[in-house]
Amino acid sequence: MDIMQTFDNAPIGVFDSGFGGLTVAREIAKALPEESIIYVGDSARCPYGPRSLSEVDGFVQQIGSWLVQRGVKLIVIACNTATAAGLAHAQQTFPVPVIGVVEPGARAAAHATRNKRVGVIATKATVESDAYTKAIRHLDAGITVFSTATPRFVEIAEQGIRMAEGPIENYTSLASKVYIRPPFQAIAKEYLEPLRRCQIDTLVLGCTHFPLLKALIGGVVGHDVTLISSAKEAARDVTEILDRHRQRAQAGHKAEYEFNTTGDDVTEFQSFGSRAFCMPITSVSHIEF
Amino acid sequence: MDIMQTFDNAPIGVFDSGFGGLTVAREIAKALPEESIIYVGDSARCPYGPRSLSEVDGFVQQIGSWLVQRGVKLIVIACNTATAAGLAHAQQTFPVPVIGVVEPGARAAAHATRNKRVGVIATKATVESDAYTKAIRHLDAGITVFSTATPRFVEIAEQGIRMAEGPIENYTSLASKVYIRPPFQAIAKEYLEPLRRCQIDTLVLGCTHFPLLKALIGGVVGHDVTLISSAKEAARDVTEILDRHRQRAQAGHKAEYEFNTTGDDVTEFQSFGSRAFCMPITSVSHIEF
Repeated sequence: MDIMQTFDNAPIGVFDSGFGGLTVAREIAKALPEESIIYVGDSARCPYGPRSLSEVDGFVQQIGSWLVQRGVKLIVIACNTATAAGLAHAQQTFPVPVIGVVEPGARAAAHATRNKRVGVIATKATVESDAYTKAIRHLDAGITVFSTATPRFVEIAEQGIRMAEGPIENYTSLASKVYIRPPFQAIAKEYLEPLRRCQIDTLVLGCTHFPLLKALIGGVVGHDVTLISSAKEAARDVTEILDRHRQRAQAGHKAEYEFNTTGDDVTEFQSFGSRAFCMPITSVSHIEF
Repeated sequence: MDIMQTFDNAPIGVFDSGFGGLTVAREIAKALPEESIIYVGDSARCPYGPRSLSEVDGFVQQIGSWLVQRGVKLIVIACNTATAAGLAHAQQTFPVPVIGVVEPGARAAAHATRNKRVGVIATKATVESDAYTKAIRHLDAGITVFSTATPRFVEIAEQGIRMAEGPIENYTSLASKVYIRPPFQAIAKEYLEPLRRCQIDTLVLGCTHFPLLKALIGGVVGHDVTLISSAKEAARDVTEILDRHRQRAQAGHKAEYEFNTTGDDVTEFQSFGSRAFCMPITSVSHIEF
């Protein structure tokens, strides 16, 4: 067998409790345009944050098994809560590589900081789990990590996406304009001013919704602060793993994107999802576990 | 300031208890031909393995401080024992990024394995520290790690390098021929057969000497087993950090390589070192702490 000709057109599985993980799917689609993706948004049980770890671990096992049965070659848990609750168990259970979003984001931050002062913004549950702080300091014990829960950012990201108008592919820039609105700016300032005063030079967007708010966040913390998108870094890891496994899709392979939701929000998923994914989502299936 | 024009011609500091770290310096020189390197081999106190962790931590502090005073922009602890003993402390002390060899090698192995069975060969001290097992399983809890101490490989690597003859730049391939000798093969088989029977698909060369033995090791474990050189992976991390910091040397910068030893082995360092570094080392300085 010629090693150079090894390829694998099987899809990549990506899942989240809802829409947020679409920013991860989008980064994978951007980095690897020939890879097919099967996405699962577990909207029926969203949000995962307030649930117990063992309950969420059970969801990860369910969704992961379903993706494995669908023949995925790799699984991305595109959700911080689900990563904390179920990544290790999923890695032990499933026959394909499973990655989360915390480790890639933490590594990028540890490599990016110059003054060894890193900020992390995330949901309350993620901040309380201390997952990013531990992962960053595991890589570089000299880094001081400042974490802040920014719960309203999820809601702002979703509001902004809904308010923006225009063609889907320009959605991100249109949303950026929406976020200039004073109420959004005020909330962002309230959350981010304390981090700015900590003189961080790197900020981890520790929630899959937050890449949608890059312009808003960058404007407040200052453009000298490097923003780390866990979504983008997870896509880098996917690329590296597929390369090392010689499992990239064949050159010229036409990617197929499949979207599934456990909720009754098929129409909402289509309209909101198209904007978060930056490509028109024409069909969404309802699935049940 | 134009962000694209940011560069930094300061050297990279690399150190080891002796010659082994030269394989790391070589990989950095290969990956980043415009980067200058200051190398320190602490031959006077070699080997570090039998010493206490706190003693070795003290050596790391000494050598790191000396490198920082020399103006390095990044430090690589190119020694497993010194990484285990002093990496975290060094990261807390020094104002520049400090990386070891364990984390990059572990990550590459976690990303490379397809059957989730990884072997690690290293010195006795490294195997007993469990550093690679912990680092690999931290990244992927589904991976089973099989570690074996291969103490005589250091001696074989050095013997092979000394016995090989020919031009320095071809040294690695010449040494490969030397390693075909039956006594070397017999030792390698004895060490590696048990790992082969564990059906590993990935093997970490967990000692900076071992990349010199790649041909010997690959021949015994089989060419379907992916060999991970911690030296090469550390060089990848150096590249990534300098890129993220926008601290690569200026395009066209002429790299300078400086070699220092704490031992009385200046001539030996020159002859052996040239071969491990794959470039003629014309001048070696004796330094003392």
